[in-house]
Amino acid sequence: MPAEKKPSNKTEKLLEGLGNSILSDIKDGKNPSFSATTRTKSNIFYDKKEGFLRLGSAMEEHSFINLAQSKRFMQTIAIAAKCHSFISQNLHASIRGLFYQLKFSLGEDVDENIFDEQSESNPLIEDLEVALGTKRENMNLNANRKGVLAGNLRIIDNYGNEKIEIDASKMGRSGWAIPSDVDNDIEFVDVKAKYVLVVEKDALWQRLNEDGFWKKENAILITPQGQAARGTRRLIRKLADMGLPIYVFNDGDAWGWYIYWTIKTGSINLAYIGKDIATPEAKFIGVTMADLEKYDFLKSMTMTATEVDIKRAQDMLNYQWINQYPEWVAELKQVLKIKKKLEQDSLQGPRLTFVDDYIRDKIKNKDFLP
Amino acid sequence: MPAEKKPSNKTEKLLEGLGNSILSDIKDGKNPSFSATTRTKSNIFYDKKEGFLRLGSAMEEHSFINLAQSKRFMQTIAIAAKCHSFISQNLHASIRGLFYQLKFSLGEDVDENIFDEQSESNPLIEDLEVALGTKRENMNLNANRKGVLAGNLRIIDNYGNEKIEIDASKMGRSGWAIPSDVDNDIEFVDVKAKYVLVVEKDALWQRLNEDGFWKKENAILITPQGQAARGTRRLIRKLADMGLPIYVFNDGDAWGWYIYWTIKTGSINLAYIGKDIATPEAKFIGVTMADLEKYDFLKSMTMTATEVDIKRAQDMLNYQWINQYPEWVAELKQVLKIKKKLEQDSLQGPRLTFVDDYIRDKIKNKDFLP
Repeated sequence: MPAEKKPSNKTEKLLEGLGNSILSDIKDGKNPSFSATTRTKSNIFYDKKEGFLRLGSAMEEHSFINLAQSKRFMQTIAIAAKCHSFISQNLHASIRGLFYQLKFSLGEDVDENIFDEQSESNPLIEDLEVALGTKRENMNLNANRKGVLAGNLRIIDNYGNEKIEIDASKMGRSGWAIPSDVDNDIEFVDVKAKYVLVVEKDALWQRLNEDGFWKKENAILITPQGQAARGTRRLIRKLADMGLPIYVFNDGDAWGWYIYWTIKTGSINLAYIGKDIATPEAKFIGVTMADLEKYDFLKSMTMTATEVDIKRAQDMLNYQWINQYPEWVAELKQVLKIKKKLEQDSLQGPRLTFVDDYIRDKIKNKDFLP
Repeated sequence: MPAEKKPSNKTEKLLEGLGNSILSDIKDGKNPSFSATTRTKSNIFYDKKEGFLRLGSAMEEHSFINLAQSKRFMQTIAIAAKCHSFISQNLHASIRGLFYQLKFSLGEDVDENIFDEQSESNPLIEDLEVALGTKRENMNLNANRKGVLAGNLRIIDNYGNEKIEIDASKMGRSGWAIPSDVDNDIEFVDVKAKYVLVVEKDALWQRLNEDGFWKKENAILITPQGQAARGTRRLIRKLADMGLPIYVFNDGDAWGWYIYWTIKTGSINLAYIGKDIATPEAKFIGVTMADLEKYDFLKSMTMTATEVDIKRAQDMLNYQWINQYPEWVAELKQVLKIKKKLEQDSLQGPRLTFVDDYIRDKIKNKDFLP
């Protein structure tokens, strides 16, 4: 149930500022315009000092009276108006919901159905995020959510007019489903843990949760359920900001590495919000090729690396944010040499609870990749 | 944290029975064997009286001394032994975890790595489920989980030695993540609702949850998050057994229809547990082609049906469990005629909360497809 309208918030004011500036451009007989940081590849770089992918300083001007930009400009302003109304109503929409609202409002007033395909509206939302220096979550747009958490963490969920306290140590085998926005409607009340363990696969998360791993270790146990959604990445960033070490436990293959590096340095696609979602402090627990030497049984648990794995390992050796670490260079070269991969599930081979010991030992011995 | 070993359960005894019968075959100098209902297509049929897809009565014998079956027989018994040990330890494994346990135990004792590919172990688990007349969930094998619920429903989650009460009306914007097994470790304490609404997409579930739809309507709001997982299908069946009407709200396209019919009649792949997971009582709320006549604005919200949608509509007209309903024949013929599809998200066009009114009206007017 929608709460009473909140006092005008920061993003609402940003959107009003954009609208007012365009109005005064029109009144002054000027070409309405706004400027935003460029998101093309040439303006995306790895910030070595900060440790994440971010945008550079190149700006571009979006204006109405410009043959190439006119349609896009108009669409962006229409999105801004919709988001402003979502905030005023204190209601959230998905990108798909926004798309249909635009289709409904503009579909009859303009000659063509400008929003026939959702792929057209997504870059416009990004334009707006960058122009206003905000995130879509602040504009009441829900991103896809995915990811589950268990541990000694309590939050208040401002759900309509209710303040619901959620205790992630009392969620049993389900865990707490991480919402798409962990900034605006969630308050962190109490976080009592020594570290955060991020586990790529839900099946392994369930295994560790059943063993009460997070309770014995006083850890916060998260699974992104594969590639981490925006909400999960943002949550990991926030937990790191609270001073908790972040350990990531993934497959030793193309997908596992990719998920790790996305959490750590962010991604090209989301470089425009890199600072908010990247966690350069994260460490890679495994599984690694070096584990084959440490745990003898793993030698019979390997799989043949696929073409995708090999290609990915080669590509990764060219990324400066990876090849600056000799440990990663050694790991990837070993993959290319023996052409094997290793899944995190394989640690259940000798006994189901072996994976608990593996993680504990790795953390105790600080045996991880940077 | 694993609980104290429970008193020997029914499935544990079934597995021991299988083992004992094979042992006595061997002692008696007989060819060890077990029989199971055949799962090939020729033995899958639609039970018109019960309303779901099920296996017929054809049986097949699996035996050890048979050139074509020997390897598979041995593997199945190895799986039975592993599952027995999981139950004894009161621990759960995923199929992938089981696969690695088998790889570990058998990989050195036998000439070849018989479990190199997981696809080999899955049909063997099904053999076992059918032979014992049980489900993998009862053998402590976790299936993939997916799906979220909110509503006036309380359960006890037997999590290790704890009994955790979960109140699905106090889960805020996250909802309760539906576990993979809703039979063995979950007790339903209290279910106070007038009906169950199943919503295909998580984004729409979030929309309705934000509006407090389930609270205003006293409904249980579920999203399978796309195709329904075993646990979610089983939960819907259980809620129907409690006497609650089940309404399904999906896209009006190939995928939306498929998700509906899988919930209602079960599927070919899971016909062997059809009785436990199909909900023939389910009704399809929409969106439908007939909605185009009732809600004028929807005419500008349609998409062009894809080849997949058209093919699916044609196929569905040939299924006896569908073409027995004139309402569905009319719906599908209309799709083939106008070659359009309609997404559930489109109901947010005029205003974000329109979807709430749509569902309420549909239920009030009993305006659904069978």
